[in-house]
Amino acid sequence: MRAFARPINELIEELGKLPGIGQKSAQRLAFHILNMPEERVSSLVDSIRLARDKTKLCSVCCNITDEDPCPICSSATRDTSVICVVQEPKDVAAIERTMEYKGLYHVLHGAVSPMTGIGPDDIKIKELLARMGDGQVKEVILATNPNIEGETTASYIARLMRTLSDVKVTRIAHGIPVGGDLEYADEVTLVKAIEGRREI
Amino acid sequence: MRAFARPINELIEELGKLPGIGQKSAQRLAFHILNMPEERVSSLVDSIRLARDKTKLCSVCCNITDEDPCPICSSATRDTSVICVVQEPKDVAAIERTMEYKGLYHVLHGAVSPMTGIGPDDIKIKELLARMGDGQVKEVILATNPNIEGETTASYIARLMRTLSDVKVTRIAHGIPVGGDLEYADEVTLVKAIEGRREI
Repeated sequence: MRAFARPINELIEELGKLPGIGQKSAQRLAFHILNMPEERVSSLVDSIRLARDKTKLCSVCCNITDEDPCPICSSATRDTSVICVVQEPKDVAAIERTMEYKGLYHVLHGAVSPMTGIGPDDIKIKELLARMGDGQVKEVILATNPNIEGETTASYIARLMRTLSDVKVTRIAHGIPVGGDLEYADEVTLVKAIEGRREI
Repeated sequence: MRAFARPINELIEELGKLPGIGQKSAQRLAFHILNMPEERVSSLVDSIRLARDKTKLCSVCCNITDEDPCPICSSATRDTSVICVVQEPKDVAAIERTMEYKGLYHVLHGAVSPMTGIGPDDIKIKELLARMGDGQVKEVILATNPNIEGETTASYIARLMRTLSDVKVTRIAHGIPVGGDLEYADEVTLVKAIEGRREI
């Protein structure tokens, strides 16, 4: 005897395809959704539809946005001479939360990964190059992730940028996280922290 | 500057209301959904709608079903003299997976909980009593959870059943889980395991 009615099994299966949702979580979510008031279900379903239908990539920075250009690119108060290059829209959100960075962004939507066959043409690198044309940009900060793919991507972009003589290319610092403990830092981070030492 | 476009923030907020989905998971899920192929999004949204619209409670056992009576209640091969009383539809699924139990079920949709104001009339107890009328049922197995609410509910139903002279009322056994280790069992379980000892 199948354990649940077919529509419930199908819902559990769909939820289980989402990242980080295992069989048990999918089941719990499915029964939660079945017990939710109708208006809560509608706002969940509508929010999925709206997020898909009302967003696009900013034609300047490639961040996901509901207005084009996005609010950051069209802001009059941002420093248009600096572009911070990140892999994903959520990285923009993370940096914005610090409320310290005032420049612009460029979202690559991925990283170069020879292992999985993602090349430079599969991410938004040519869109980044197109922004260099007018000579307004003085610095490009490479803030891709500190792993193999992120480093490969950063090196690739740095090499491309060298052909544009008057743009400074920088990489975010690696090191011990603030509040972190030397003892628990991995060796690579520790090496990077020592390499990146600064006079005080 | 708000970190994400409004429709994305709204999707993150809706996903974050689901049980077990924190802020970070909601964000990861939202971007996953934004990157999903359109047909995957449609089947996710449709599965939510269908699970809501095509299911109802079985008029006999109160399990969630897409056919009434449900496949278990309408099966010709189940033992109609035994009813196993559980709190939730997922408990039916758990017992069905054992492939050992051949009787019927009754789903209470909750448990009596004076703490949160859930009384006997708020769960499907009168629907259970209604099934006792024709004298076909010889045993009621109380398989509510082994916690305060489940035990309270089991005691309450047992007391009600005593007025129906020819129905045997049983409670599932508590004890050390198979493969478990005495050393790591909590005291209450250990006491229950000793109390429930059987001659071998």
